[in-house]
Amino acid sequence: MNRPSVALTMGDVAGIGPEVIARAWSDSQLHALCRPLVIGSPEVLRRAVELVEGAIEVQAIKDPRAAESSLKLIPCLEPTGAAPVGEVRPGQVDARAGRAAHDYLIHAIDLALEKRIDAITTLPLNKEALSLAGIGHPGHTEILAERCGTPDHAMMLYLAAERKPGATPRRPGLGVVHVTLHVALRRVFDLINVDSVAAKIRLADRAMRPLTEGRRPKIAVSSLNPHAGENGLFGDEEVTIIGPAVERTRAEGFDVSGPHPNDTLYHRALGGEYDVVVAMYHDQGHIALKTAGFRRGVNITLGPPITRTSVAHGTAFDIAWKGLADPSSLIEATRAAGRIVAGNRESRPD
Amino acid sequence: MNRPSVALTMGDVAGIGPEVIARAWSDSQLHALCRPLVIGSPEVLRRAVELVEGAIEVQAIKDPRAAESSLKLIPCLEPTGAAPVGEVRPGQVDARAGRAAHDYLIHAIDLALEKRIDAITTLPLNKEALSLAGIGHPGHTEILAERCGTPDHAMMLYLAAERKPGATPRRPGLGVVHVTLHVALRRVFDLINVDSVAAKIRLADRAMRPLTEGRRPKIAVSSLNPHAGENGLFGDEEVTIIGPAVERTRAEGFDVSGPHPNDTLYHRALGGEYDVVVAMYHDQGHIALKTAGFRRGVNITLGPPITRTSVAHGTAFDIAWKGLADPSSLIEATRAAGRIVAGNRESRPD
Repeated sequence: MNRPSVALTMGDVAGIGPEVIARAWSDSQLHALCRPLVIGSPEVLRRAVELVEGAIEVQAIKDPRAAESSLKLIPCLEPTGAAPVGEVRPGQVDARAGRAAHDYLIHAIDLALEKRIDAITTLPLNKEALSLAGIGHPGHTEILAERCGTPDHAMMLYLAAERKPGATPRRPGLGVVHVTLHVALRRVFDLINVDSVAAKIRLADRAMRPLTEGRRPKIAVSSLNPHAGENGLFGDEEVTIIGPAVERTRAEGFDVSGPHPNDTLYHRALGGEYDVVVAMYHDQGHIALKTAGFRRGVNITLGPPITRTSVAHGTAFDIAWKGLADPSSLIEATRAAGRIVAGNRESRPD
Repeated sequence: MNRPSVALTMGDVAGIGPEVIARAWSDSQLHALCRPLVIGSPEVLRRAVELVEGAIEVQAIKDPRAAESSLKLIPCLEPTGAAPVGEVRPGQVDARAGRAAHDYLIHAIDLALEKRIDAITTLPLNKEALSLAGIGHPGHTEILAERCGTPDHAMMLYLAAERKPGATPRRPGLGVVHVTLHVALRRVFDLINVDSVAAKIRLADRAMRPLTEGRRPKIAVSSLNPHAGENGLFGDEEVTIIGPAVERTRAEGFDVSGPHPNDTLYHRALGGEYDVVVAMYHDQGHIALKTAGFRRGVNITLGPPITRTSVAHGTAFDIAWKGLADPSSLIEATRAAGRIVAGNRESRPD
């Protein structure tokens, strides 16, 4: 079967997106699990290749199926009518860059919905530039959800298993799904209940399934309180909420355990004991995964009918176009997209 | 100047304490910064040396100054009248072991108060065994605080910088001081205020000072909310409490910054950008340090007038006396004790 095609959307050209693509391209790992192509400006991409002193040709294409991606060739598709970005300056908020980032994304979504590409990996956009361009949605995920008509969406933070030279990683890596995310810590207590925790356990299973080669994902659920509440001594949410949610979903057939004390859980999970952790709040998962692999983390979007991964960093205007940006997150995000498409094909052979 | 003497108290002999000592002893790193000796049962220790197949002699001593510690010789002082432990069985809660662990600790504290040893590193005791022996205090730190007449005490979690073979670590490692520790997450909001955060910033400076070779420790303060509250969008404690506490202590002369977003802070701190982090609640610091160095973390006690460090693990009755226990935390705790004594000598030459 063909390796999946993954379209990298260039994002805001004033940020680190273009140079990260150029730098990632010469890493064979980017190509190992998929055929990458770029949706963006060939002109800007050529400049980025020059910046990182890559010996890579940028080939403008019109049809993603014509892409003949290789270590030496970047197929780059600029959507017809996309905003011109040739004059956007590095590190500057620019409505043209905001509009173009939106154009690239919309085109990639449409290609994916039409099944002309298999997945999307997005480079960061700048919310201010989007807003200057008159685009009402605050970010990628909202645009994606609207275009696909799927209001319910969620993210999984994901860290691929470390690759040792020459060795095939034995493990699928570690995902983290959060019950609450961008809310004040004080509000977490209002949002955690048996239903919301159980819903995220089911979501964690679904999100991780394509990455575990058909095996049912092993799910661990975080506790909320220190030492998992030490039998109610330091809080009772483990007894009244998290425990019952674990029991309910286990009865439904999920391979789930917890609540686990967090000081050992993430270490164990990162060591391969679990495939995915359901965290109660933002900093639990983020502290663990950023400590374990700062530059390698990626995001996986759940909900829309297309496969989309994204880098875990922003546009980084402060270092953009200085040749300093690290391509690790893009490489991992692209690989994860390829792996998810392949995993879904295996479970639903066509 | 003499290397500091550090007494390792054996803890509960039914647990992993004795074998961890025996296993640590043949690592030259245990001896590099101090002269270790043991307070405990020579008989039990000989059995532990046999268990780990060490070629080490255990020498019973009566005066800590007589200790001639080496890779091949463990000086072991059994306090007069200490409870006999020869018949305690592995992994069993036993009042004699509880009583003896208490006797070893009290003797070590007295030796330290009399300045006949320079520091104490404690192996774990079992609270149930202590209680069976009729000892009212729940643990080491309470016993220490009572014996020294210092009711105020606190802990710093500490992870030494990783040692590469042949290289001298450039960094002092990373400490974490918690504003709140063993309380329900829900209660954290009642306990965090400008005074309590400022007090822990001052404590962090004092605790870390002996480990930074006279340099003022660089202190970073955690935020409470995701993205440090994103300018009040996800909670306001950063603006109303943590920020003002940072400003107050900075005005007092401390090298302190924050509140920092936690998803990047711990990674940066572990990379050497800061010496000590002030965390708002238990799991922040514990997730980060256990993810970064699961077996190497140690605790440093603050408050009493003597230097005391301890291993970060428990008695582990389930694996005790099976030859499976890892000595890393003991090695690091002993080294930290030696380093603190040396650091204090430098700043207060006598």
